Amino acid sequence: MDRIVALMKELKSKNLALPIWFEEGALKVIDQLKLPFQEEVYTLHDVSELAKAIKNMNIRGSGAIGICGVYGILLAALKSNGKKETILEAATLLKSTRPTAVNLMKTIDEMVSVAEGSSEDIVEKVEQKAVEILKRQLQFEYDLGAHGAELINDGDTIMTHCHSGALGGSGFGGRALSVIRTAFEQGKKIHVYTCETRPYLQGARITAYELKKFGIPHTLITDGMSGYFMNQGYIQKVVVGSDRVAGNGDLANKIGTYNHALAAKANGIPFYTATSSHTIDFFTKSGKEIEVEMRNGDEVVYLNGTRIAPEGTHALYPSFDITPNELITGIITEIGVIQSPYDRNLKKLANNNPVTI
Amino acid sequence: MDRIVALMKELKSKNLALPIWFEEGALKVIDQLKLPFQEEVYTLHDVSELAKAIKNMNIRGSGAIGICGVYGILLAALKSNGKKETILEAATLLKSTRPTAVNLMKTIDEMVSVAEGSSEDIVEKVEQKAVEILKRQLQFEYDLGAHGAELINDGDTIMTHCHSGALGGSGFGGRALSVIRTAFEQGKKIHVYTCETRPYLQGARITAYELKKFGIPHTLITDGMSGYFMNQGYIQKVVVGSDRVAGNGDLANKIGTYNHALAAKANGIPFYTATSSHTIDFFTKSGKEIEVEMRNGDEVVYLNGTRIAPEGTHALYPSFDITPNELITGIITEIGVIQSPYDRNLKKLANNNPVTI
Repeated sequence: MDRIVALMKELKSKNLALPIWFEEGALKVIDQLKLPFQEEVYTLHDVSELAKAIKNMNIRGSGAIGICGVYGILLAALKSNGKKETILEAATLLKSTRPTAVNLMKTIDEMVSVAEGSSEDIVEKVEQKAVEILKRQLQFEYDLGAHGAELINDGDTIMTHCHSGALGGSGFGGRALSVIRTAFEQGKKIHVYTCETRPYLQGARITAYELKKFGIPHTLITDGMSGYFMNQGYIQKVVVGSDRVAGNGDLANKIGTYNHALAAKANGIPFYTATSSHTIDFFTKSGKEIEVEMRNGDEVVYLNGTRIAPEGTHALYPSFDITPNELITGIITEIGVIQSPYDRNLKKLANNNPVTI
Repeated sequence: MDRIVALMKELKSKNLALPIWFEEGALKVIDQLKLPFQEEVYTLHDVSELAKAIKNMNIRGSGAIGICGVYGILLAALKSNGKKETILEAATLLKSTRPTAVNLMKTIDEMVSVAEGSSEDIVEKVEQKAVEILKRQLQFEYDLGAHGAELINDGDTIMTHCHSGALGGSGFGGRALSVIRTAFEQGKKIHVYTCETRPYLQGARITAYELKKFGIPHTLITDGMSGYFMNQGYIQKVVVGSDRVAGNGDLANKIGTYNHALAAKANGIPFYTATSSHTIDFFTKSGKEIEVEMRNGDEVVYLNGTRIAPEGTHALYPSFDITPNELITGIITEIGVIQSPYDRNLKKLANNNPVTI
C-alpha cells in the first residue's frame, strides 16, 4: 500500500479538488449533490458502496467516473489480497453503474489487464497501475491547461458553461477549468463568467464553488445573458468542456452550449472546447449521428424541490445540444490545440499520443 | 357609474384574463406575484392602495400599468364625486409609482384632460373617457392579434420568451400572446414553447398560466434550449413582446431575447416582436442609445428564496438586452406588420392612427 499512500500524500500537498481519494484503507468522496452548500465527505468501505455513489450522482463528471474505475479495482485488489475473482466481480459491478461511460470501461479494463500472476503479484501490479493512471490523468490536466492557457490573454474575461472542472476530472481543473486555472496561475489577470446552466445549475453550484476555492475572480450570469455580455464587450473568450467530439469536430455538450456558440460567432469572440484527444469519437462522423438523450422534463419544472410552473405544465429536457464545427475556433487537447479543418486535423492525433481518458 | 358597470359586465362575459377591474365601487387586481400557484384577488379601496400594488409589482406589465392609470383616475373621480383637486393628487401619486412608465403617464394625462367643468360633468366625462380607453385598448389587442395571426400557419409551433400576455395588457392577450391566441381561436392547430425566462421565471410562471387558462397547448423549456429545438425543427416562429422599439427597429426586450434572435436567424426561423405603434420610440435612433438597467444580482443568486450558488457569489442582472433590427423579420402592430427597412417603414405609421398605449 506504500505506493498509493505516497501518491495520496503527494496529491494532498497540491491545491487540488479531488473528487475521490484513498485514505486509511477506504475511499473518500466529496458529495457533489450537496455542493456548494455543504462539503460533505463520504467514506466508501467497499466497491458496492462506490457503485452506489456513482449511480446516485454523488460523484459525477466523465473524468471523475473514469478515476472511480481506478480506485474501485484498487480497493477490490487490496481488500481481497489480490483475489482475481473478486477483482473481476468488482469490474462487472462498476461497469454496470454507467453502461455508456466510456472512460469507466477504459480505466477498469486497463486496471484488470494487469491483474495476473500470484495474489501478491496482483496486488502489486494493480497498485502500480493505479498510481500510473492517476499520475497520467493529472498530467493530462496540466498539459491540457498549458496548451489552452496560451490562448488566454492577460486581462481576458472567459465565459464557461456547465461544469468542466476539477471535481469532474482528477482534481486540478478537469478540462475547461484546467485552461482557466493554468492561465490564472501564470499570473494572467483573468475573470470568469460562469453561466448558471439550467436546469441542473452546475455552473452556479459546482463551477462557482471551484472558482471560489481556487481564488479565481468570477461572476454568475444566467444562460440567456451570454449574448448581451459578449455584445457589450464584457467577454473575450469562451471555453467549455465536451461530452463528446465527433470526427468532424462537431461538439456535443450540455444544453445551452449551442446558443453561446452562436452568440460568440455573431460577436467575433473565439469559442473553444477542451477535451481529451482520446475521447474524440472518430466512429461518429458528425454531430447529426449523435442521439440526444431526453431527460425527465420535471427537472425543468422543479427547482430545488419547488415547482416553478403551473400544475400540469409539461416540459422538455434535452440533456445536451450539438454545436457545429464551424462555430468552434479550436479544440484544446492535452497534445495541442486543433483548428479547422477538423476532419483532417483531428485524424492526425488519432494514434500518436499516450492513452488518457 | 352605469357606463363602467355595463362595460365590466361586458368584459366579464368574454374569456379574458383581466389584470384589474372595477367592482362594487372598488378596484380588484389579481396578484401576479402569487401566480401561478394562487389566484389571489385583492380589493383596492382607494388610489393609495392602487399605488402600493403597482410599486410592489402585484400588478405588472407595461400595458396593464397603463390601464391602472385609467382605473386610478376613475376611482378618484367617483370617490370624490368629481373633485378636481383629488383627481390631480391621484394623478401625481400614481405617476410617482413608476416614473419611467410611459404608458402610465399617457393614460393619466388623457384621463385628467377631460376633468373639466362642474363636479357632475367631471364624473361623467371621466367615466366616459375610462370606458373609451378600456374599449380602445382591448380593440388594440384584437387588431394586433389579427395582423400577427396572419403570419402563423396551421401546425406551427411558436416560441415565446418572458410574458407578453393578457395580464400585462388589458386582458385578451397583451402583445405576443394576442398573436398566439388569435391564431389559436382561428382554429389553427398551434403549439407554444414558452421559455422559462431566468432569473424571474415570467415564462414558466405567468405565460404558462395564461396558456393553460386559454387552453393553448404548450411546453416549457429553459432559455438555453431555444437553439437546439429550432435546429431540430421543433419551432417554426418566434414571437416576443417588446419593452421598447427604437426608430431603426432595434428591439429592447427581456434579457435572453437576443440569444433567441441569433438562434432564429442561424436556423432560418422568422422572429417577430409584437408592439403598439405608439410605443415605437422615434427619439431613440438605435438600440445603442438605450441604457440597459442593471438590477440586483441577488435576483439571480436566489431562486424562490433559496440560494443557488456559494456564499459570496457575485452575479449580474441586466434586465433586458438589445436585438438589432437585422435579426427581426417583422414588427407586429395594431395597424399591420412592419418589415425592413425599418427606419423608413416605421416612420410611415408615426402619425396616422388612433392613439393607443
